[in-house]
Amino acid sequence: MYEGVVQDLIDELGRLPGVGPKSAQRIAFHLLQADPVDVRRLSDVLVEVKAKVRFCATCFNVSESEHCRICTDPRRDPTVLCVVEEYKDVVAIERTREFRGRYHVLGGAISPIDGVGPDQLRIRELMTRLADGELTEIILATDPNLEGEATATYLTRLLRPLGLRVTRLASGLPVGGDLEYADEVTLGRAFVGRQAAP
Amino acid sequence: MYEGVVQDLIDELGRLPGVGPKSAQRIAFHLLQADPVDVRRLSDVLVEVKAKVRFCATCFNVSESEHCRICTDPRRDPTVLCVVEEYKDVVAIERTREFRGRYHVLGGAISPIDGVGPDQLRIRELMTRLADGELTEIILATDPNLEGEATATYLTRLLRPLGLRVTRLASGLPVGGDLEYADEVTLGRAFVGRQAAP
Repeated sequence: MYEGVVQDLIDELGRLPGVGPKSAQRIAFHLLQADPVDVRRLSDVLVEVKAKVRFCATCFNVSESEHCRICTDPRRDPTVLCVVEEYKDVVAIERTREFRGRYHVLGGAISPIDGVGPDQLRIRELMTRLADGELTEIILATDPNLEGEATATYLTRLLRPLGLRVTRLASGLPVGGDLEYADEVTLGRAFVGRQAAP
Repeated sequence: MYEGVVQDLIDELGRLPGVGPKSAQRIAFHLLQADPVDVRRLSDVLVEVKAKVRFCATCFNVSESEHCRICTDPRRDPTVLCVVEEYKDVVAIERTREFRGRYHVLGGAISPIDGVGPDQLRIRELMTRLADGELTEIILATDPNLEGEATATYLTRLLRPLGLRVTRLASGLPVGGDLEYADEVTLGRAFVGRQAAP
């Protein structure tokens, strides 16, 4: 439809998640008119990110060296491990500054519909990490949705017999929200998980 | 927030039109896990598009050489010129196969709010093209919105005194649409522009 290389660009952009044909076209036209220096910078960072970024050999967090900053930080508590689905969950938890232990990134959640079973996640690697006996608690911080809950249930069954303390993040009302607008499941969980008033 | 180069990538992606911070993050994580060959291809096409694509010296259509395929095609009618806002409008019109003349891409529409006046558009270049006297009709195919109409009105005043036939694309009901759902302005125009039944 378009001049050869413009169509190539639209095709490549259209392969990105959440970028439909119309957005791809819009981005391509923007780039056609953009400063070549800006386009070059985007092009370079794409190459750089694939060259530099790898996954931590221990926890599978994103890392620029063999082991990530968190795994190599001696100030992090080696007895508590937080299991998350994705790298972005690590970033979200780090942002809270509430957790000083280490992580394990599963690489997703169990989802039969998407053909993801326990074997597709880094559960075998998680079990290997438990071998040294240093860990005392595992916090399952998978997403509070169907797949995340299924994954947490699966891991609980696997880990509890090992005599570890296995915990889940609290479910309840989001801070700053309106009770009135909470969905029933969340409100129900907030009741079940109620705590003594401070 | 993220490892250096990952944050750089998120920042660069977030500069693209229609890509918010959340989408930028989503695309970045997708690229982190994508096949390096695919990411390389996107990176390469970005460089290639800036290296290869320029704008036709005559009509300002996108081109891979000094003059675009349409301007250099001897089968195109040199007496009819279609004035459009953007390159993508050329593509849309070419797709109809209804027009066999040539184009002139203005590079936008008059929009005082965005600081775009006649001087920011390629109107001077359009006037230069009329000098050889070969043209007999100019079709103003700007967008049927406020800015497009303003641009067409401006050009009509400029061109009509030159003794050229100046036309606009017909306004009316979109084919395949429901009369009931047409907005009043469109329906009103469809009445004003009514034609003898075939």
